[in-house]
Amino acid sequence: MPSFVAPTRDARFVINEVLRIDDYAELPGFAGASADIVDAVIEEAGKFASEVLAPLNASGDQEGCTRQQDGSVATPAGFKEAHGQFRESGWGTLSAPEEFGGQGMPHVLGFAVEEFMSAANMAFAMYPGLTGGAVNALLAKGSTDQQQTYLPKMVANEWLGTMNLTEPQCGTDLGLIRTKAEPQADGSFAITGTKIFISAGEHDLTDNIIHLVLARTPDAPEGTKGISLFVVPKFLLDADGNPGERNAVMCGAIEHKMGIHANATCVMNYDGATGWLVGEENKGLAAMFIMMNAARLGVGIQGLAQAEAAYQNGVSYAQERRQGRALTGPEDPNEKADTLMVHPDVRRMLMDSRAFTEGMRALALWAGLLVDLSHKAATEEDRTAADDLLGLLTPVIKGYGTDLGYKVATDMQQVWGGHGYIVENGMEQFVRDARIAMIYEGANGVQAMDLVGRKLAMNGGRAIQALFAEVGKECAAAKADERLADLAGRVEKANGELQAATMWLMQNGLSNPNNAGAGAYDYMHLTGIVALGLMWLRMAGTAVAALDGGSSDKAFYEAKLVTARHFGERFTPEAGALRRRMEAGCEAIMALPDEAFVRG
Amino acid sequence: MPSFVAPTRDARFVINEVLRIDDYAELPGFAGASADIVDAVIEEAGKFASEVLAPLNASGDQEGCTRQQDGSVATPAGFKEAHGQFRESGWGTLSAPEEFGGQGMPHVLGFAVEEFMSAANMAFAMYPGLTGGAVNALLAKGSTDQQQTYLPKMVANEWLGTMNLTEPQCGTDLGLIRTKAEPQADGSFAITGTKIFISAGEHDLTDNIIHLVLARTPDAPEGTKGISLFVVPKFLLDADGNPGERNAVMCGAIEHKMGIHANATCVMNYDGATGWLVGEENKGLAAMFIMMNAARLGVGIQGLAQAEAAYQNGVSYAQERRQGRALTGPEDPNEKADTLMVHPDVRRMLMDSRAFTEGMRALALWAGLLVDLSHKAATEEDRTAADDLLGLLTPVIKGYGTDLGYKVATDMQQVWGGHGYIVENGMEQFVRDARIAMIYEGANGVQAMDLVGRKLAMNGGRAIQALFAEVGKECAAAKADERLADLAGRVEKANGELQAATMWLMQNGLSNPNNAGAGAYDYMHLTGIVALGLMWLRMAGTAVAALDGGSSDKAFYEAKLVTARHFGERFTPEAGALRRRMEAGCEAIMALPDEAFVRG
Repeated sequence: MPSFVAPTRDARFVINEVLRIDDYAELPGFAGASADIVDAVIEEAGKFASEVLAPLNASGDQEGCTRQQDGSVATPAGFKEAHGQFRESGWGTLSAPEEFGGQGMPHVLGFAVEEFMSAANMAFAMYPGLTGGAVNALLAKGSTDQQQTYLPKMVANEWLGTMNLTEPQCGTDLGLIRTKAEPQADGSFAITGTKIFISAGEHDLTDNIIHLVLARTPDAPEGTKGISLFVVPKFLLDADGNPGERNAVMCGAIEHKMGIHANATCVMNYDGATGWLVGEENKGLAAMFIMMNAARLGVGIQGLAQAEAAYQNGVSYAQERRQGRALTGPEDPNEKADTLMVHPDVRRMLMDSRAFTEGMRALALWAGLLVDLSHKAATEEDRTAADDLLGLLTPVIKGYGTDLGYKVATDMQQVWGGHGYIVENGMEQFVRDARIAMIYEGANGVQAMDLVGRKLAMNGGRAIQALFAEVGKECAAAKADERLADLAGRVEKANGELQAATMWLMQNGLSNPNNAGAGAYDYMHLTGIVALGLMWLRMAGTAVAALDGGSSDKAFYEAKLVTARHFGERFTPEAGALRRRMEAGCEAIMALPDEAFVRG
Repeated sequence: MPSFVAPTRDARFVINEVLRIDDYAELPGFAGASADIVDAVIEEAGKFASEVLAPLNASGDQEGCTRQQDGSVATPAGFKEAHGQFRESGWGTLSAPEEFGGQGMPHVLGFAVEEFMSAANMAFAMYPGLTGGAVNALLAKGSTDQQQTYLPKMVANEWLGTMNLTEPQCGTDLGLIRTKAEPQADGSFAITGTKIFISAGEHDLTDNIIHLVLARTPDAPEGTKGISLFVVPKFLLDADGNPGERNAVMCGAIEHKMGIHANATCVMNYDGATGWLVGEENKGLAAMFIMMNAARLGVGIQGLAQAEAAYQNGVSYAQERRQGRALTGPEDPNEKADTLMVHPDVRRMLMDSRAFTEGMRALALWAGLLVDLSHKAATEEDRTAADDLLGLLTPVIKGYGTDLGYKVATDMQQVWGGHGYIVENGMEQFVRDARIAMIYEGANGVQAMDLVGRKLAMNGGRAIQALFAEVGKECAAAKADERLADLAGRVEKANGELQAATMWLMQNGLSNPNNAGAGAYDYMHLTGIVALGLMWLRMAGTAVAALDGGSSDKAFYEAKLVTARHFGERFTPEAGALRRRMEAGCEAIMALPDEAFVRG
């Protein structure tokens, strides 16, 4: 049975020492997030994750969710109680606005907590996680009345929320949505249609479920310009605002999935259900994108989280299991064999996992800080700069973060050898759970197109230029210290590959957009390497300063420098290969007629 | 529900046109394998795979195997009947020696058939597949009496065979085996111990099961030098050679696994079971390696097979599913959306799959031919040359082939978006089944060490030098044709990276073997790229010649050239990155103390 300990030391290192949250104390919400409070919240969240959620991860996977004849859904044993504790501990309220009962803490802290919960039990963490997305959409687009009605309950996790986008005929292409919304005399709408793949669509964790639903009003324009957003509670509210009459929305089935079994993925049937328009008619997609952008960061964090959980269990097996001898001679001559830790190829996988998880953690938490700064920074210029980088990094965190998360989960399963393939050992669950993160909230190929087709070109490429400049500055500074110079040179080279790739895209994507499409995925990974490189430079710089300052936690900082070196040596060489692959363009990829793909 | 059509055209292309099996007609066994017979066997095997085995793939996964109270095991519905048909059609006898009832056909043909069976239903194909390995071991090391007793039945698939190596405390490190073999007065041995992860250890497909078991005789030396091989039938044979008394070997449990549910992976309890020594005492490991080397090629073919099956279903979904529009403007303006085939990123994944499956098929079938030539080539020199290359390529086919097989299965699941995560659509089964191939028969890290630590150095590096020379020759020849020159230049460059990496290993692996260990995995992938490059050069050359010759199957050869180009453009750039990664050496990988890996 796998175990999980929240990587609290590393999260505190990033938040307090690398991102230096104390520097922002004058901004709204940050005053309550001094280093000592951060430490306390991090430790408490870590404890909750490892003690309450982690023990339910394997059992939840094995039991799964059960739909009853009446359409109600039972979550696995222990989930309802655990969610009760989650709610009472206020974990859902952490970075929600104080106006609606939240604690108003910075997102950078909220993201760290999210990682722990997701690493301990991804299927569980999705229930409150999706609610956070729904809260964001109502905050941005809901009427004052809607906000007053739903947000306090949702922030408190008394009611949970969902996102209803997908239909059988439409996933990525939301322009194909068919669900209908008929206006009623009282100002409400009657929603009719079928939604599929609705995570947490039905369950027994809360008294009510608040669905946010994309649908078309009569005579709405075709395509994405005719989609509106509606709020549809499972139980309509009575005069006191409490759940009353059952609304005409039912779970028709639970999907059988590869993983995240403990999260109920539902077919939702809307049969004239009562809903209310959120925001403007036909502007639903814009509202949904607010939810989706936050959700995409959350999914990137899931990739990180599954990698972290798998890493820890890879380490514990490698340290216990004795098999073979060190190539340089027996390490433990009194034992019949050495531990797996002596084998360079096992350590390669463990070090790759460290380089990814620690780099990605820094990147995700930086993104959390950018969310905060995009709203709360003192000047318009700073807010815009944060928003630029956040927009650019969001598809990278989602796409690169989940691809690598799956790779690390697979590698850590590999460390276990045949025992990794056995269900009871839990390593294969990390792989199955991590797999969905590459698919949902926009498949990773869609993230790549979002990066290349939208984010890159926005405001004349301002965001990517800012990234280049930031990396360049960090490299130049780091080169002055011989302990950082090798890494700085490698990251600088990767940054150069990214600049060249960007130039190539500008020149060749315009003449034929398929060149951009064919290179987008490699470009996303290339950006991921550079973004992680920037994080490793910052972390290594922080570690060097701490060591020079005579820190008592020497082992931690020294390990950080070794892992930084590993990142430089083993992750950055890929950058050149990615660029050269892109530069092949789209010709061969687009050349074959459809029938040539069919075997015979 | 996924479907499978055997890629018979491509297999015939490789065997008849690229490897030119007709050129070997004078060698033993090849006379019966003229191009027209190859075509007939390939088509018939393809039909059997797609019509009999493929329909049982999903149902077998869902039902799994069932162990009864008495220790007997039921395979999923339809498996017994399908195996009956398999046996009656003689598929198990194809490349077995005529002396024991086999058809004595070349292995190159047998490998093609193996791919089809494994692609259609990997869990099913393992039952006869493992028997083939046991047959090889008995052929090599069994006494005449043992061969006469077991081989005719096993070749005919009337009895199936197993390999019993792993124990709870030992997987890779077979020196740790504890199972005991006590000599009995009648010359037999009493075998006692627990074996785990025994594929096809117990089932209801045949009247008897012949276990090959590694165990220690009393006073055997410690470690790998004290291991002997025994044959242990489930039912002891009566005077007529028919199954009689039940032997004291029982299935104690079936493992719950991530995939290959329809193959019974058993804990086998030997409780004084009667067995007979195969070959010499304490020389069991050498005998087992004969089985394992053949089995490793078979596992590489499983990687290819799962990739092929997944590819076909990726294509069919991409051609049916309509979502979004071509970047260059609507392709089907009368439909609400274009098919996924218009999206460059989807086609990138499909083309990657083609480049891998077609290249790997050529490599696996070439290896099949090398098996034949290593035994049957006319001169000692030719036999040695074939054996050299086969030994070198075996870990590459196993390690690179299964890594890429898993990647392709994952990519093809990705093409399906959210629908790929749903069990009923079958794409996730390909991923779960493909996953084991990276682990068993020596985890891929062990393959990498076999390549770098054993195969590379054998006979002063004769094998790798032969590969360099062969690739160099093929590149030089191809450069003369402008249709092949770009690919040739790219493969030549990759070959140069491999040569440089080999030189680096020689220089740095001797001074510190951990350098070899830390670089082995990258080296294995680098060799895989060069080996596939050689295959693509040969295939592209064959295609050019066919087109120049005015072939009527123009579309096939043109597609081959496009896919060859894609391989060159998208697979070879990785070579340089792999070399640079290796050249970082082992320092950072070996630097951290054990406790630094533990999170807190």
